[in-house]
Amino acid sequence: MDFEYSPKVVDLQSRLATFMQERVLPAEAIAAEQLASRPDRWDAPPIMADLKASAKRQGLWNLFLPESGGAGLTNLEYAPLAELTGWSPAIAPEALNCSAPDTGNMELLARYGTPDQKQQWLTPLLDGEIRSCFSMTEPDAAGSDANNVRLEIAADGDEWVLTGRKWWTTAALRDDCRVAMVMGVTDPDAPAGARHSIVLVPMDTAGLTVVRSTSVLGFDDRHEGGHGELVYDGVRVPKGNLLGPRGKGFAVAQARLGPGRIHHCMRLIGTAERAIALMTARARTRVAFGRPLAEEGVVQATVADARIAVDAARLTVLRAAWRMDAEGAKAARHDIAAAKVLVPSTVKKVVDDAIQIFGGAGLSQDTPLAMLYAHARFLQIADGPDQVHRRSLARAEFAAAPVLREVRG
Amino acid sequence: MDFEYSPKVVDLQSRLATFMQERVLPAEAIAAEQLASRPDRWDAPPIMADLKASAKRQGLWNLFLPESGGAGLTNLEYAPLAELTGWSPAIAPEALNCSAPDTGNMELLARYGTPDQKQQWLTPLLDGEIRSCFSMTEPDAAGSDANNVRLEIAADGDEWVLTGRKWWTTAALRDDCRVAMVMGVTDPDAPAGARHSIVLVPMDTAGLTVVRSTSVLGFDDRHEGGHGELVYDGVRVPKGNLLGPRGKGFAVAQARLGPGRIHHCMRLIGTAERAIALMTARARTRVAFGRPLAEEGVVQATVADARIAVDAARLTVLRAAWRMDAEGAKAARHDIAAAKVLVPSTVKKVVDDAIQIFGGAGLSQDTPLAMLYAHARFLQIADGPDQVHRRSLARAEFAAAPVLREVRG
Amino acid sequence: MDFEYSPKVVDLQSRLATFMQERVLPAEAIAAEQLASRPDRWDAPPIMADLKASAKRQGLWNLFLPESGGAGLTNLEYAPLAELTGWSPAIAPEALNCSAPDTGNMELLARYGTPDQKQQWLTPLLDGEIRSCFSMTEPDAAGSDANNVRLEIAADGDEWVLTGRKWWTTAALRDDCRVAMVMGVTDPDAPAGARHSIVLVPMDTAGLTVVRSTSVLGFDDRHEGGHGELVYDGVRVPKGNLLGPRGKGFAVAQARLGPGRIHHCMRLIGTAERAIALMTARARTRVAFGRPLAEEGVVQATVADARIAVDAARLTVLRAAWRMDAEGAKAARHDIAAAKVLVPSTVKKVVDDAIQIFGGAGLSQDTPLAMLYAHARFLQIADGPDQVHRRSLARAEFAAAPVLREVRG
Amino acid sequence: MDFEYSPKVVDLQSRLATFMQERVLPAEAIAAEQLASRPDRWDAPPIMADLKASAKRQGLWNLFLPESGGAGLTNLEYAPLAELTGWSPAIAPEALNCSAPDTGNMELLARYGTPDQKQQWLTPLLDGEIRSCFSMTEPDAAGSDANNVRLEIAADGDEWVLTGRKWWTTAALRDDCRVAMVMGVTDPDAPAGARHSIVLVPMDTAGLTVVRSTSVLGFDDRHEGGHGELVYDGVRVPKGNLLGPRGKGFAVAQARLGPGRIHHCMRLIGTAERAIALMTARARTRVAFGRPLAEEGVVQATVADARIAVDAARLTVLRAAWRMDAEGAKAARHDIAAAKVLVPSTVKKVVDDAIQIFGGAGLSQDTPLAMLYAHARFLQIADGPDQVHRRSLARAEFAAAPVLREVRG
Repeated sequence: MDFEYSPKVVDLQSRLATFMQERVLPAEAIAAEQLASRPDRWDAPPIMADLKASAKRQGLWNLFLPESGGAGLTNLEYAPLAELTGWSPAIAPEALNCSAPDTGNMELLARYGTPDQKQQWLTPLLDGEIRSCFSMTEPDAAGSDANNVRLEIAADGDEWVLTGRKWWTTAALRDDCRVAMVMGVTDPDAPAGARHSIVLVPMDTAGLTVVRSTSVLGFDDRHEGGHGELVYDGVRVPKGNLLGPRGKGFAVAQARLGPGRIHHCMRLIGTAERAIALMTARARTRVAFGRPLAEEGVVQATVADARIAVDAARLTVLRAAWRMDAEGAKAARHDIAAAKVLVPSTVKKVVDDAIQIFGGAGLSQDTPLAMLYAHARFLQIADGPDQVHRRSLARAEFAAAPVLREVRG
Repeated sequence: MDFEYSPKVVDLQSRLATFMQERVLPAEAIAAEQLASRPDRWDAPPIMADLKASAKRQGLWNLFLPESGGAGLTNLEYAPLAELTGWSPAIAPEALNCSAPDTGNMELLARYGTPDQKQQWLTPLLDGEIRSCFSMTEPDAAGSDANNVRLEIAADGDEWVLTGRKWWTTAALRDDCRVAMVMGVTDPDAPAGARHSIVLVPMDTAGLTVVRSTSVLGFDDRHEGGHGELVYDGVRVPKGNLLGPRGKGFAVAQARLGPGRIHHCMRLIGTAERAIALMTARARTRVAFGRPLAEEGVVQATVADARIAVDAARLTVLRAAWRMDAEGAKAARHDIAAAKVLVPSTVKKVVDDAIQIFGGAGLSQDTPLAMLYAHARFLQIADGPDQVHRRSLARAEFAAAPVLREVRG
Repeated sequence: MDFEYSPKVVDLQSRLATFMQERVLPAEAIAAEQLASRPDRWDAPPIMADLKASAKRQGLWNLFLPESGGAGLTNLEYAPLAELTGWSPAIAPEALNCSAPDTGNMELLARYGTPDQKQQWLTPLLDGEIRSCFSMTEPDAAGSDANNVRLEIAADGDEWVLTGRKWWTTAALRDDCRVAMVMGVTDPDAPAGARHSIVLVPMDTAGLTVVRSTSVLGFDDRHEGGHGELVYDGVRVPKGNLLGPRGKGFAVAQARLGPGRIHHCMRLIGTAERAIALMTARARTRVAFGRPLAEEGVVQATVADARIAVDAARLTVLRAAWRMDAEGAKAARHDIAAAKVLVPSTVKKVVDDAIQIFGGAGLSQDTPLAMLYAHARFLQIADGPDQVHRRSLARAEFAAAPVLREVRG
Repeated sequence: MDFEYSPKVVDLQSRLATFMQERVLPAEAIAAEQLASRPDRWDAPPIMADLKASAKRQGLWNLFLPESGGAGLTNLEYAPLAELTGWSPAIAPEALNCSAPDTGNMELLARYGTPDQKQQWLTPLLDGEIRSCFSMTEPDAAGSDANNVRLEIAADGDEWVLTGRKWWTTAALRDDCRVAMVMGVTDPDAPAGARHSIVLVPMDTAGLTVVRSTSVLGFDDRHEGGHGELVYDGVRVPKGNLLGPRGKGFAVAQARLGPGRIHHCMRLIGTAERAIALMTARARTRVAFGRPLAEEGVVQATVADARIAVDAARLTVLRAAWRMDAEGAKAARHDIAAAKVLVPSTVKKVVDDAIQIFGGAGLSQDTPLAMLYAHARFLQIADGPDQVHRRSLARAEFAAAPVLREVRG
C-alpha cells in the first residue's frame, strides 16, 4: 500500500497545472464573454480552438484513453489529472479532449466499433474535430430503471428505423456534434437484458430533430452544447450502424458508464478544491466585525470539514480507479457506485458552503461557484441517481460475508 | 392558545386560493413565454397588468399593509395569505402588490414619509403604478456587518450628494422602478449608530447608473427586475428627500427589515408546500422497478420529513407574526431571526428533495423547482446571512435566565 | 390563533416551577445516592414518598388526566406542565403521579375498566399507592409491526391462560408494581385487527416471572423500575380480567398510545430546555484560549440552533395537543406522529451538543446529560420507531389533496 | 500508489482474524459475566490471562510498537490489524497488549525513558504484567486548551512534590495499574511551551488517591479500569522520575498523542465494521410487514451509506498512517487530525443506525452496540475534542497555497 503518485504522474500533474494556470483559468472570462456575445449560437467559444491546439502540442491530449490513440494512462494515473481539469469543468475537459460524453463514446468505439465505424467517427473524435452525444434517457420513463428505455429500433430491410423521444442528450445542440449513440429496443420479445441495442445516428439524418435544450438550475450549459431533447421520427440508418452486439445494449453501455462515472468523480474533486481555494482566499481577506472571516470559528469549522471531506472523497475515487485497473470495471462496480454517491453530495456541500462564505457574490456570475454548484447537483442525478447506486451497494453488502462472524445475538 | 385561523382569514384564504388556482398558476407558463420572447427587456410580462387588475377588483390588494391604505390585517392574519402567494413567488406577490422590496418600502413611507413623500411615492406604490428599490448592500463590504456601509451622502447647500456603489438592489432594472431608497453615510464623525441616513433618489436622477444585474444560481430574476449594481456618481437630490431622521438610517431600516424577513418566510412556507405537492404528485404516478415511487420507503421518508419540517417551520413563522402583533417588531426580533434561519434552510432542503424525486425534470425548466430552489438559497444570504442571526440569537440565549436554575454541576 | 398560555396554565406553571426548583432538582442528587447505596433493590428511592406527598398537598397531582379523578386539564393545558417535569424525567413525573406507563394505564382503566377493575387498580394508581406496567413488545418479533404480537391468551373455562414472552415492560421490576396489562392473541382465527385483546395480570400471579431487566445505553433505569423481560408460563387469570372488548386489543391500546406518545414529547421539550440551560451556563463560565466559550462562534451557532429547533419542536407538540382536544386522538394521529418523529431526534441532538460543550463531564455522572441523552435516544424506538411513523405520515400525505392543484408538469 | 495490503500484512490479518473469531468473540460473554459477578472489583476478568497467553504464543503481541521489543510493524502495517481488534474493543486490544493508554505510555518510555525507567516500567509493560495510566486532564480546566494544565510539580531537594487533581485517567482503577505518567507545571515562570513536564508516579505512592471513576453514557468502563479521578496531595517521587526533558512535557506528550489518536481511529474502523456486520445480519433475518428488513429501501440506504462512509474513513486513517511512516508524526499531524475528526463521528453514526435497525435490542446489553456507541462518542472528546482539531486544520488550510491560484474575483 502506497499513497504516493508515481513520478510519471507527478510530471504530468506539473505540466497540466501550468497549462491550467496559464491558459485555462485566464480563458474562463474570455469564453464567458464570447458565449454571452452570441446568445443564439451553440458552438464552442472561439478561444476553445486555441486551447485545444495548445493542449495537443503539449501532449495533454486524450489523457483519458488507455487504449491505442490515447495517452496510455491507467485510471489511477488519469485520476489526479482529471482532477485538475475539474477546477474549470466548463473549459478544461474539452480543451484536453477529455470531456463527457465524448470520452465514453470514444471508449465504446475503440472497444466495439467496426473498422469503418472507427474510421468514420473515432478518428475525428480523437482528433477533436467533431463532438458526439449519447442518447439514452427518455422523458416518459424513470431514468433510475434502465429497463424503461422504450425508443423503438425496428429492422426494415437493410436499415434500422428509430422512433421515439430522448432527452438529457448532452452536447446534442453543438454545431460540431456529428453523431449520436442511441439506445433503443431492437428485440422487444427477447428476455430482459437482451432487448436493447445501440445504433450510431449521424446528427443530420432525416427525421432527427433536436427540439430544445433543458436547463440545470437556471444554467443553459451552452458551453457543453446543452442537454438536447431529441425526436426520432422514423429515422433510418444502415444496419451497419449497430454498435456492439445486437441485444446487448446495456452491457455495451456499462462499458462506458463505469469509466464515465468515475471520470465525473475525478473532476468533481478538483471542483471541490477550487471551492476550497475560493473560500479560503475570501476568508483571508474579507473583514467583518473587525477581523478577517478566517478568524471566525464557524468559518474555520467549515473549511476544516471541507478539507476532511474532500480528501476522503478523493481517496474513495482513487481506490475505485485502482480497482478498475487491477480487476476491471465490473469487479470495481461497487467502488465506482460508492464514489458516485459520495462525491457529488460531498462536493455539492463544499461548494454550497463556499457560496455562503461569499454571500451574494457566491450566487452570482462573479464567481464560478454557482455554476460549479449546479454541476455537482446535476451529477447526483445524471448517470444514475444516488438511490439506485445505494440499492446496489446494499445488496452487495447483504450478499457479502463479513470478515468476522457474529457469535452473539 | 389556539391554532385555528380566524373566520376572516379562512374567508380570505379561500378567495385567494381560488385566485391562485384560476389566475396565477395558469399565468406562469404565459409569463415565462412572454419574458422569453423579449430577452432584452426588464419590464413585467404583459399578463401581469391583467392579474393586478383582477386582484385589485377582488380586494386581494395590499394585504401586507396594516396601516391605512392597506388591508388592515395583522401579521398573523397576513401570514397564511402570504403563504399562498409563495406557491408562485415569481408572479403572485406582484399581482397582489405584496412583493419585496416594495412592501418594505411602502411601510417605511407610511411610517416615516413626509406628506410630500407620501404623495409622490407612496400613493402610486399603493396603486401598483410604480415599483421601487432599496439600495443598501455594497460590493466592497461584508453585508453581514451593516456598519460597513460606506456610500457617501454629503450635504451641499440644499442638496445631498451621493457617491458610491451598491449592488443586490432588487428590482432596480425594472422599467417601472421609479425610486431608490439609499442607505449611506451622512455623518461620518458621529458615533456608530448615528452615521447613516436614508434618502430617496428618483431612478432617473443624473449620475445614477444601473451598470448590470447579478444573477442567482444561473437565474437572472428578470421577473422581479433583477438585482441591480448601481453607481452613484455625484447624484444630487434635494435635502427634503431624507427619509426618516438624519443619522437614524439603521433604526429606520429595521422597521422594514423585520417585517420584510418574516414576509419572505411566510411565502417560503408556501413554496415548500408547492414542492411537497409536486413531489407527492410525481411519486404517485411515476413507476420504477414495477411500482409507483410512492411505495418506496426512501420516498416515503422524504415526504414525511418534508411534512414534519414544513409544519414546524410554519408554526415558527406564525408565532413570530403573533409576537410582532402583540409586542412589536423589536420585541419579536429573536422570533423573526429564528424564522429567518430555520425557514430558508428547511425549504431549500425540501425543494432539493423534490428535485431528486423528479430527477432531471426537477433541475430543468419543466418544473418550477429549480427556480424555487434558487429563491430559497438566496434567502439564506439576503436580508442578513444565517450566521448573523445565529449570533444574535445566541447572545439573547446567554443573556436570558433559564426557566429553572441548575442546582448541580 | 393565539400563542399565549391561559391564566390558569400560567398559574400552574408558576406553582410547578417552584416545586421543581425547590423540591425536585435538589432531590436528584439525594435520589441518586439512595439508589446507589442499595444496588440490589428496585424500589423507589425513599425521598420519592416525600415528593409525592408534597405534590399531592399542593394540588400538583394527576395533572395528566382529563377525566374525573384527574386535574381536568386539556392536553393543551397539560403540555407546558409536562414540559416542566421533563427537566428531571427520572423524578418529577413520578413525584406528580404523571409517569409512564402508569398514565396510559390509568387512561385505559378510566375509559375501559369495569367498576371492579377501577376499584381494584385505578383507585390505588390515582392515589399513587401502586405502580403498573404495560406488556406488549416481544423479543422474537419486530416491534414496528404490531401484528407480530403472538403471546397466547387461551380461554379455559372461566379463565384466561397466558403463554409467551414479553420484554421492554417498563416498571415491571418495581416492588410496588402490582399489575400488568398484557396484549396477546385471544382469537387467532379472527381477521387481522380482531385477534388481540388485553388482560389484567396481577404481578404476583403464579407462572409470571420477571427474568431480567434490559438496559439502555448502559443505564439500568432502576429509577423507573427497569424494563422487564417477563415470561408468562401458563399464567391464569379470571375471564373478568379482560380490559375492553375482546378482539379489540389494538384499538384499546391506541387510546393509551396516542396520549402516551405526546406526553413523552411534552416532557422531552423540557429535557431539551434543561440541556440548553446547562450548555449556556457552561459556556458563560468555561474559559478556553483566553475567553469564555460563549464568545466562540461555533458555540454560539450550536446554542442558536438548539433554541430554534426546540421552539419549533414545542410548537409541533402544542399543535398536536390542541388537535387532540379539538378533534380527538384519532383525528390528531398524524400530528402526534409528526411530534413523535421530530421531538426525540431534535432533543437527542440538542443533548448531544450540550455534551460536546461540556466535554468529559457531559458524558459522566457529573451532569444529567448522559442520562437525558439515553432517554431521548430510547424514545426514537419506544412507542413505535421513527420509520413506522414516517410511513404513516407519508401515506396520509399521498392521500391528501394539496391546497392548490399543480397546473404544470 | 497502491491500495493492496502487503503479503506480510495479509498473513497477520488472517492469523489475527482467526484469533478474533475463535478466542476473542466467544470470550465476550464470558468476560461480561465475570465482571458482572464481581461488581466491586476493578481487575481484569480472569479469562483475560488466557487470552493474553494465547496471543503471546501466537506472535500476536505488541503489534503496535515499531521499536525494539515490539513487532516492528509500520503504522501502515499495523492499521488493518488494529482494525480487527476494534471489533471487540473491550477485550481484544488488551489481549494483544495493544490497548490504550499503555501503548502510548510504552512509546514514551521506549523513546524518552532512562535505562532504569525502562527496566522498571517498560519491560513489565511489554510483558503485559502491569498496566499504566496517563494523567493529564484536569476537572477545573478546559481540556481543549492544554495550557490550562495546572497541577503543580514543585522541586524540593531530590524530589518532585505533586499537588493537584486529575480526572479521565483511564485504567487508574485497575489493580494491576502500577504507574501514572503525570503532566504538570515544573516551571511556572517559563514561557508558554516550557512550563510543563511529565513525571512517573507509582500508583502506591503516599498522597496519591483514586477518589472515583467517571462513567461514559452509563457505562463504568470497568473492563479497562475505569476513568480515574486522582488527587495528588503532596505526592513525592525522586527527581529521577522525570520522563523526558524538563519543560518539554507537551512536546513529549505529542509523541504519544499522535500515534494514540490514530490507533483509536484504526480500531474504530473495526468497530464500525462490526456494526455493519450486525445490522446486515439483523436485516437479513428480521421480518416486518411480511418481508425481511433487508428489502426495505430505508434499510438499504442506511447500509449503503454506512459502507461508503466507513470505507472512506478507513482510507483517511491509512493515508495518515502512511504519512506518519514516510514523514513522521509531526508532518502527519493534519492527516491525524482529519482522521480524529472524521472517524469517531462517522462510526458514531453507523453504530447509531445499527441500533435503530435493531430496535430495543440495540440499546440493551443483548448486543455490543450500546457499548460501541458509548466508545465512539467518547472519542469525539477524548484526546482533544473535534473543535480543537478543526481549528488547527483550518489554520493549515489558510496557510497553504492552493494548487492553482484563482484568477477571478
